[in-house]
Amino acid sequence: MEPIKVGLLGFGTVGSGTFTVLKRNQEEIKRRAGRGIEITRVAVRTPARAQAAEGVAITDDFRAVVDDPSIDIVCEMIGGTGFARELVLRAIANGKHVVTANKALLAVHGTEIFEAARAKGVMVAFEAAVAGGIPIIKALREGLTANRIEAIAGIINGTTNYILSEMRDRGIDFATALKGAQELGYAEADPTFDIEGVDAAHKVTIMSAIAFGVPVQFDRAHVEGISKLAAIDIRYAGELGYRIKLLGIARRTEKGIELRTHPTLVPEKLLLANVEGAMNAVVVQGDAVGTTLYYGKGAGAEPTASAVVADLVDVTRLHTADPEHRVPHLAFQPDSLSNTPILPIEDITSGYYLRLRVADVTGVLADITRILAHKGISIDALLQKESEQVDGGNKGETDIILITHETVEKNANAAIAEIEALSTVVSKVTKLRMAVLH
Amino acid sequence: MEPIKVGLLGFGTVGSGTFTVLKRNQEEIKRRAGRGIEITRVAVRTPARAQAAEGVAITDDFRAVVDDPSIDIVCEMIGGTGFARELVLRAIANGKHVVTANKALLAVHGTEIFEAARAKGVMVAFEAAVAGGIPIIKALREGLTANRIEAIAGIINGTTNYILSEMRDRGIDFATALKGAQELGYAEADPTFDIEGVDAAHKVTIMSAIAFGVPVQFDRAHVEGISKLAAIDIRYAGELGYRIKLLGIARRTEKGIELRTHPTLVPEKLLLANVEGAMNAVVVQGDAVGTTLYYGKGAGAEPTASAVVADLVDVTRLHTADPEHRVPHLAFQPDSLSNTPILPIEDITSGYYLRLRVADVTGVLADITRILAHKGISIDALLQKESEQVDGGNKGETDIILITHETVEKNANAAIAEIEALSTVVSKVTKLRMAVLH
Repeated sequence: MEPIKVGLLGFGTVGSGTFTVLKRNQEEIKRRAGRGIEITRVAVRTPARAQAAEGVAITDDFRAVVDDPSIDIVCEMIGGTGFARELVLRAIANGKHVVTANKALLAVHGTEIFEAARAKGVMVAFEAAVAGGIPIIKALREGLTANRIEAIAGIINGTTNYILSEMRDRGIDFATALKGAQELGYAEADPTFDIEGVDAAHKVTIMSAIAFGVPVQFDRAHVEGISKLAAIDIRYAGELGYRIKLLGIARRTEKGIELRTHPTLVPEKLLLANVEGAMNAVVVQGDAVGTTLYYGKGAGAEPTASAVVADLVDVTRLHTADPEHRVPHLAFQPDSLSNTPILPIEDITSGYYLRLRVADVTGVLADITRILAHKGISIDALLQKESEQVDGGNKGETDIILITHETVEKNANAAIAEIEALSTVVSKVTKLRMAVLH
Repeated sequence: MEPIKVGLLGFGTVGSGTFTVLKRNQEEIKRRAGRGIEITRVAVRTPARAQAAEGVAITDDFRAVVDDPSIDIVCEMIGGTGFARELVLRAIANGKHVVTANKALLAVHGTEIFEAARAKGVMVAFEAAVAGGIPIIKALREGLTANRIEAIAGIINGTTNYILSEMRDRGIDFATALKGAQELGYAEADPTFDIEGVDAAHKVTIMSAIAFGVPVQFDRAHVEGISKLAAIDIRYAGELGYRIKLLGIARRTEKGIELRTHPTLVPEKLLLANVEGAMNAVVVQGDAVGTTLYYGKGAGAEPTASAVVADLVDVTRLHTADPEHRVPHLAFQPDSLSNTPILPIEDITSGYYLRLRVADVTGVLADITRILAHKGISIDALLQKESEQVDGGNKGETDIILITHETVEKNANAAIAEIEALSTVVSKVTKLRMAVLH
């Protein structure tokens, strides 16, 4: 049988990695797919940069590749939500299958793209969009179909996990760790999307749709990064037996779906807490399977290419099949999506880590615990530390760190407001959320 | 569309778990599969035991279910390699798809069964045969298709992992830990298959076929359990920074494939070393993706049912598809299997943990290290301990523990024979293998 023909849009890290892996392992891949998979055209802004794509027609005309009748699958590797969206929709309109690693595109425009693909009877595959080489989309979409998924919690941004590991290991602050990460190439020159949690939020938004059978709704996600995280909270969390990780969390509750990305305290005895450096890991909890975890490299040329090529094999296999034989894009049949609401952050339920500075006078702890008790918030752990002068503390002041039992966030916020109003409390309350995992 | 009809053979732990999960999550599963999945008949030796299967026709005539023209998929949950083999082959001959959790059957008779299925154009799905609820078969067969798989190393037997965790945590010996595991239901009354490594070897044999595109060859696997493992080796390994785990290992080398199950020293900084209790985890290393890990419950009614039902959904989806649209049973096209040999254990390459007792006289360590150097074996770590009287040591004797660099096993064995022949060496050498993971 003739090889299936792939047009590659973009030849950066992931594009060139895909080319390399497909070429190096072509025999092995063909033995699996039953058919060769060949990149026959590459579109790239600066064709001179794609010289590694030997023997392939290279162009700077992206639309020409998307419109080429000889191309079966378009591989979108340019990123962003503008031109990429146009090209993907155009490829679909041309009846081509699409493989993409573009989480921003799917988190923001997924509903439009999947609907266009459904109407045209083509596949849009996106394993590489979440957690790089870890086959987490396949696990969620196919491996765990028996389950009512209860929760997902993932370390799905390598840059921030690297920075957090460095902050903890070396006791350095965020700015220093970021600078080091930039020097080593773990963080971009403009790291905003990573450090402010946007990238992780894109990824968990995609996973939430697959897990719960809801549309992708990035605009409803709560997005919080690590740029405001203080070194001292990493240290105090460590003393209490926790590591702080930037988690993307999607959780089903009776009231609706929680969809949130923020720094989170994870008990250090859990495997997830021990995922260090630029590695990724996703925990999935299902009602039948219990807790499962998937671990690997979440970025880089070849790990991401591993996911792209796996999608190419899947598409090759189901290329001529009836749509009913294919796995639905978002795991659930398009006519079976649910309208379960995404909860505003005030309505989520969590345990909280609270740090505050108090005047070292009698009764202050009693005032704080009375406020929490009045709101029905139990205390799971308490740490009291003499304030450090380096952090701007004055003699005669004390840091109090509390870990609370689970409560609704607005209830915690109300308690915090009351605590901050106490005359003996001399700082704002730093609030971090606890992982809800077992 | 009518629900697809499933006949269940066996209603023990996994059979009844499958019934429960399918029933509880039927709506959610239907939203995914696009079609209902219904167990319409159950065969069980003692029909009174299947009373939980309400509203379903129950029989003790297994062949009647396999022969029932209304049944689309036969779910084999009885285990063993005798009657199960007959029923599975009969179901295939009847043109029915098969879902099974039976690792022994596939490890031993897989070639015959997959060939029969291929000839008849039906699917045999077996996610539940390896690592329970962890979708590791899907990851290997579909998620990592881009890769040349280099190595698999898995904790794939919960009973032995529980026993090893207990031995380490509580400093107890194997017999005591086994007894405790039996009392808690983690080990069977006859635990032979688990503790002697047979169950893990079945599972890694299946994974080796999928990873490397070779036939299932259980008769070539090296099988070694934990029943001879001494508590002192767990302690010494701990002092050197390792945990001992029963690993199923399948590894590609230039000379052939290593396929082996044995107690293994795993560096404690790796996630795999931190998988405790009855949990399972599988590490897969691919040339593109690097190291990935998959973690979850490897046994139990609902975790195993999670895998069985995921297979039912897959089969339902591809039920009427052309075989070319389906994933090949062993990941590679049947006409593309490789005849790469499985290496005898003497030809594998590993680092080794060696423990021996010596008379406490000058020059004994020099003699040992000279023998190793002469064989070209480097020493990575060395521990020297006064012998413990409780272990039968005499005053004036010393335990020496060596960790060697990698060498071919027969070379290590030759060195061990020479060491044991030294007059100053007063014990046999205890040899354990090191994990080859990064």
